[in-house]
Amino acid sequence: MNDKINLNLLEIPTALDALNGVAMDLDDCASSSLDKITVTDNPDIAFKETDFAFLVGAKPRGPGMERSDLLIGNAAIFSVQGEALNGQASRDVKVLVIGNPANTNALIALSNAPDLSPNSFTAMMRLDHNRAIAQLANKTGTHSDEIKKMTIWGNHSTTQYPDINHVLIGDKRVNELVENNWIRNEFIPRVQVRGAEIIKARGLSSAASAASAAIDHMNNWEFGTAENDWVSMAIPSDGSYGISEGIIYSFPVTCFNGQYKIVQGLEIDDFSREAMHASESELLEEKEAIKHLL
Amino acid sequence: MNDKINLNLLEIPTALDALNGVAMDLDDCASSSLDKITVTDNPDIAFKETDFAFLVGAKPRGPGMERSDLLIGNAAIFSVQGEALNGQASRDVKVLVIGNPANTNALIALSNAPDLSPNSFTAMMRLDHNRAIAQLANKTGTHSDEIKKMTIWGNHSTTQYPDINHVLIGDKRVNELVENNWIRNEFIPRVQVRGAEIIKARGLSSAASAASAAIDHMNNWEFGTAENDWVSMAIPSDGSYGISEGIIYSFPVTCFNGQYKIVQGLEIDDFSREAMHASESELLEEKEAIKHLL
Repeated sequence: MNDKINLNLLEIPTALDALNGVAMDLDDCASSSLDKITVTDNPDIAFKETDFAFLVGAKPRGPGMERSDLLIGNAAIFSVQGEALNGQASRDVKVLVIGNPANTNALIALSNAPDLSPNSFTAMMRLDHNRAIAQLANKTGTHSDEIKKMTIWGNHSTTQYPDINHVLIGDKRVNELVENNWIRNEFIPRVQVRGAEIIKARGLSSAASAASAAIDHMNNWEFGTAENDWVSMAIPSDGSYGISEGIIYSFPVTCFNGQYKIVQGLEIDDFSREAMHASESELLEEKEAIKHLL
Repeated sequence: MNDKINLNLLEIPTALDALNGVAMDLDDCASSSLDKITVTDNPDIAFKETDFAFLVGAKPRGPGMERSDLLIGNAAIFSVQGEALNGQASRDVKVLVIGNPANTNALIALSNAPDLSPNSFTAMMRLDHNRAIAQLANKTGTHSDEIKKMTIWGNHSTTQYPDINHVLIGDKRVNELVENNWIRNEFIPRVQVRGAEIIKARGLSSAASAASAAIDHMNNWEFGTAENDWVSMAIPSDGSYGISEGIIYSFPVTCFNGQYKIVQGLEIDDFSREAMHASESELLEEKEAIKHLL
């Protein structure tokens, strides 16, 4: 498409100077697809008429901080942003929460935006989804674009469940190509803790892959998913697959016409069922910790 | 095009762990355009059958370091890389030197690659070119893609000469739209020291804009420049516009069929002539400082 992008960049007041430097750096790209850049510390300005919101910033876990402190610290950020989206954003805004704990942060934003559709709020599982595909490609000596129908269920945390039971590589089921032992004892734990593995090697968090996953997520949501494939998105649960409503849970989805739809009717074995419920339980606990803010 | 990219990443031995982390991060993109990633500290492996070489790494200027120390320190790096390109790279490799002092580094690489065409060696002026366009767009309230025929002459240093005398915005010459006083006292010095301005604001060097400029440079070189426009590339001087041969100097060029060609016949006024020669003199001095290595 030929539309140019207006970029609204939101930061906390103390980081505005650095953000202005980022805006200068972007300006110097002389990009044909970028139009106006707005730098602000005011969410009402940042989210004015926003069509696509990437909520990247979150409070990191500090030393000695309890999980509940982390959840509550982030709730303050995401309730403000939810309210600003509610008042200012385009009525069919697409919101992608990337800052962790992403699923519960998305739930807080959603619950502070009563005038927007709950379906406008999603959290990013695409990095996990892409990591899982990359691991399968490495293991089977195939290219990642040959790998279809990967699913990540649950929370963007170490309880996430990368489910290979429906994966196709070419016309083969992945279970015919790799051993169950490798899946359970190497593949699943590796995808779950890949973020920590990257930090250990690079000395910094995932960067290119996180940005790339955010673009993939928004791109598929807006322009649709490929035929005979699906992607993983954390979205408000509608009770599918027995997952409680009222949490933001990752499901396999197809996208068409700017809308996502959960893939229905997948067979779920006992191992999967248990893993899916463990991640659901974690999300219910996270919700409990911040319920006074919803 | 549908070709997938094989990426060879070269680092010094002490940074290989971090580079492996970068490779993991890229792997996790599950990109449909990326194929094999090779991580190495051996230039002969890194440049094996390379079609496009981005020479990014260079020795930074340390405290108390003389300019000649900097030139000689980098000469060691770029002579090794030139030799490896000479022995290993594709015979029509396109080399873009980004690490500073980029023009003289490119000259060193070239002179260590006698079996390759000298025209395979270029240095990056596209960041300066794009910065100049962005400044003109801001000043005139136009979009950067309306601005054509910008030229940066000379060295990628503060002696570079951003020349607006041939620039068109729509069908207007830029001289009709902005005052000469602004060009000489604000625009030119600002483009020349934009790198330092970004570092001051961001606390870090240009990142997105430098990467974007490197892609722009290689993209235009391989796939051609737009009709009725040109770009700035530092290339081996052929004596055009009275610039000495034997240095890597930035000229306005058009690209077609994977080859660049200097735009000829531009009128050069006295102010421009003087600025172009000042930058030429600097490059001749740089060459003198490393001539025992050529």
